[in-house]
Amino acid sequence: MSRWTGVATCTMLDMTRFQGGPYRAFAPEVRLLLPEEVEDPAAVDFALTFVPGEGAFALYPNLRAIFSVGAGTDGIDACQSRPDVPVFRVEDPDQAQQMAGFAAFHVLWHHRRMGEFLAAQARGAWERRVGDQSPTLRRIGVMGFGLMGRAIAAGLVALGYPVTVLSRTTPRDPLQGARHMTDDRLEAFLAETDILINVLPLTPATQGILNAGTFTALPEGAALIQLGRGAHLVEADLLAALDSGQLSGASLDVFETEPLPAGSPLWTHPKLVLTPHVASTPRPEAVVANVKRGMASLD
Amino acid sequence: MSRWTGVATCTMLDMTRFQGGPYRAFAPEVRLLLPEEVEDPAAVDFALTFVPGEGAFALYPNLRAIFSVGAGTDGIDACQSRPDVPVFRVEDPDQAQQMAGFAAFHVLWHHRRMGEFLAAQARGAWERRVGDQSPTLRRIGVMGFGLMGRAIAAGLVALGYPVTVLSRTTPRDPLQGARHMTDDRLEAFLAETDILINVLPLTPATQGILNAGTFTALPEGAALIQLGRGAHLVEADLLAALDSGQLSGASLDVFETEPLPAGSPLWTHPKLVLTPHVASTPRPEAVVANVKRGMASLD
Repeated sequence: MSRWTGVATCTMLDMTRFQGGPYRAFAPEVRLLLPEEVEDPAAVDFALTFVPGEGAFALYPNLRAIFSVGAGTDGIDACQSRPDVPVFRVEDPDQAQQMAGFAAFHVLWHHRRMGEFLAAQARGAWERRVGDQSPTLRRIGVMGFGLMGRAIAAGLVALGYPVTVLSRTTPRDPLQGARHMTDDRLEAFLAETDILINVLPLTPATQGILNAGTFTALPEGAALIQLGRGAHLVEADLLAALDSGQLSGASLDVFETEPLPAGSPLWTHPKLVLTPHVASTPRPEAVVANVKRGMASLD
Repeated sequence: MSRWTGVATCTMLDMTRFQGGPYRAFAPEVRLLLPEEVEDPAAVDFALTFVPGEGAFALYPNLRAIFSVGAGTDGIDACQSRPDVPVFRVEDPDQAQQMAGFAAFHVLWHHRRMGEFLAAQARGAWERRVGDQSPTLRRIGVMGFGLMGRAIAAGLVALGYPVTVLSRTTPRDPLQGARHMTDDRLEAFLAETDILINVLPLTPATQGILNAGTFTALPEGAALIQLGRGAHLVEADLLAALDSGQLSGASLDVFETEPLPAGSPLWTHPKLVLTPHVASTPRPEAVVANVKRGMASLD
C-alpha cells in the first residue's frame, strides 16, 4: 500500500482555512486539520496553502511536502519559513477554461470598445460603430504557454483572432492555428501584439516584466490583459503608458498588493477594468486530486 | 463570357447609400449608381439594399435580382414593392467570427456577472466572488445553425461551455463537441438552457419566437442573448420575465424599432445590456464577392 495514500496515514494542515470546507473531501485518507486543531505540530506531514505568512511553516518541523491550492507556487516559494521540501501546484483543465473565457471577455471588451456601448446605453444614446468588428483586426499576444496560456490561445483562435504565443522554450505540442515564438524574440513578439495577455508564472525572471520598456515595444494604442501575478506589473509604468496614450486600456485581475488598497490610483483610472483576482480558481476536486497525485509521487 | 460579370454589362442601384463607398469596388464589371444618379430606371438590372422602404423597387421595372448587403433578407422579403426576382444574402465567414466573439462576450457577462465587478470598481470596493467560474456551470443553447450559429457554438465549445444547438433539420455536418436538437424538441432544448442565444433568420415561423412561453420554458434565472432580428422578440414579454426574476438578464443587439426609440423602457432596465445593432457586419469585400457569385448563378 502507498505510504501516504493509505487510510488515515497522514496529517495535513489546512492553512487556507477560508476554503477549508470543500477540502474535507480528503478524508478518510488524510486527516485535515485547521491550525487550531493541531495538537502535535511534529505530527503534521503536509501543508495546504497558497500565500502563507512569513513564519507560517516554522511550527512544523516534519513537513514532507507543501501543496498549493492554486495554479502558482510563488506565494509559497517566497515564504521565509519554507522548509526544503517539494512544493506542488494544482493543474486543473477546468481552471484553464475559466481563464480562457475571462481572457476572451476582456479581448472583446478592448477590441469592440464595449465600455463605450455601456456608456451610450446609460445616456440613452443610439451610437452605432461598425466596420471595426473583424477579429482579424486585433493581433493577440499570449505570454505563457502552460495549461492556461494554451486554453486562452485556443479560445481566441476559435473566435478568429490571430494569436501568437510566447514561451520560454519551443513547445513540444504546439497549438494549431497559433503562431509560436520563444522569449528570445520578445521584442518582435511585442511589436506585433495589439492585445497582450499575461499568464506567465511569477519567478525572478518574470517579476516586473510588464514595465515601461514592454509597453513602449507594443504598437501605440495596444491593450493589456493582466491575469498573472501582481508582481509581474509595474503599476506606475502602466499608469504612465495609459496617460500618454501608448496603451488604450488595460484589464487587471491581480495587483502588487491584494486587496488593492483604497488609495490606489488604479481604482479610478478611466482606461482600466479591475476585477478582484477572480479570473479563475481551481475546483476543490482538482485540488484534492492533485494533492493525492503529489503524495503518490512521494512514495 | 458571363452575361452579368463581363465588363460594364450591367447597372446596379445602391440603395444603401451610407455604405456606398466600399462597394465602388464592384467597378468595372458593374456600374454602381446611387438613386439620384439613375437616368434611365428601366436600365437598372440589380439593386443592392438591406431594409428598403415600402415603394423602393416600384421605379425599376426591369430588376433581375436583389442583393442584400447583410446576412439576412427579411427586410427585403417584407418590402411591398419587391418584384418576383431572386434575392441573395451575404455569407461572410468573417462576419460569423465577429458574431462568435460578440456572443462569447455576453455569455461571460451573464455567467460571470461582470456588471457587478464593474459596479464594485466604480465604488472602489474589492468584492471577490469565486467558485462560480467553471464554464460547465452554464448550459448554452444556440438557436440557429447557419454560418453564425455554427461559429458561435464552436467558440463557446472551445471556451469549455456545454453547448446545444437547435436547428430546423438535422445538420449534415454537425459540430464536434456540441449537442444537436431539431426544433420539434424546442421545449426540451429550452428546459436545459441557462443562456439562450438567438441567431435565427427572421421568417413568419420565427417571428415572436422569444416570448413569454419561451421564457417560462427556460430554467429560472436564465439569460437571453438576442442577436437575430428585433421581430423575434416580444419586448413586453422580456420585460415581464426580467421583472419576475424568471430571467436574470439579457443582452439585446436588435430591436422591434431601430434606432430604439427614446421612450422605450428597455433603455433603463437594470438587467439589460443594449447595443445598437453592432454585433457583426459583413466586410465590403464579402458583399462584393457574394454579389458576383449571385450574378454568376443567374447566367
